Amino acid sequence: MDYEAAMGVALAEARIALELNEVPVGAVLLFGQDPQVAKVIARRHNERETTADPTAHAEMLAIRDGAEIMGSWRLAGTTLVVTLEPCPMCAGALVAARVDRVVFGAADPRGGSCGSLYNLCGDPRLNHEVEVIAGVRESEAAQLLTGFFSRKRSD
Amino acid sequence: MDYEAAMGVALAEARIALELNEVPVGAVLLFGQDPQVAKVIARRHNERETTADPTAHAEMLAIRDGAEIMGSWRLAGTTLVVTLEPCPMCAGALVAARVDRVVFGAADPRGGSCGSLYNLCGDPRLNHEVEVIAGVRESEAAQLLTGFFSRKRSD
Repeated sequence: MDYEAAMGVALAEARIALELNEVPVGAVLLFGQDPQVAKVIARRHNERETTADPTAHAEMLAIRDGAEIMGSWRLAGTTLVVTLEPCPMCAGALVAARVDRVVFGAADPRGGSCGSLYNLCGDPRLNHEVEVIAGVRESEAAQLLTGFFSRKRSD
Repeated sequence: MDYEAAMGVALAEARIALELNEVPVGAVLLFGQDPQVAKVIARRHNERETTADPTAHAEMLAIRDGAEIMGSWRLAGTTLVVTLEPCPMCAGALVAARVDRVVFGAADPRGGSCGSLYNLCGDPRLNHEVEVIAGVRESEAAQLLTGFFSRKRSD
């Protein structure tokens, strides 16, 4: 499954969040170095409102599922594919979990921490660096978010 | 319970982590504006190795417990007291959870994100700022960590 296709799964997860009136963000954790043959080992969506858990961002949930499946907190060999650029908490979790790579859709100028406000994934002072690939199926991811927030404002 | 006393509880949690061969970090979540009458609503220690969960830092677990108790992801009115300066993930979680204040013991020059490497808690571009109080019972917290890592190296 290449990154475009994996983003399709993440976008489907974001649409589930939308149905639940959650900020529509979805994430997929892939295992395997070659994206063509990597397998989806976790797919989650934002559940902050549903679970009343401030840490229940799609990325965090996918990372925790992945660790459970791999039986280790070290997620070497994995790639997180997420519709929105991760926030400081989620970018920090990618570093803490030793995830190899993050692929995101839309950039987040308000809190993005993989290049926008911060680049926590590429800081050689931290004990791990995460490769960043930005802008995969960006417009689809952005459209979901824009639609959600404009509907919220008109409520 | 003032911050010195709350740090005593966090230090006791860190000692539990030490017994489990975890990096000895403990955290306490207080609810109430006045530290003299604030109540401990969660007390946790690092469980990363025990649970094989990369997000199971003491701070994250205390925040999640607190949200469950308060029935909301918004932890307004709370103070997190933690033995070690939070990492990027945990500092990001404090912002995401709208925690009022963080009180820490030892600074972490390798990953600390409340003043050392980053100050994620005091960035006006993010949607919340967290007050930071550093250095409470610092030497006790540092001693626990130094002891743990020097024992690890000699193993």
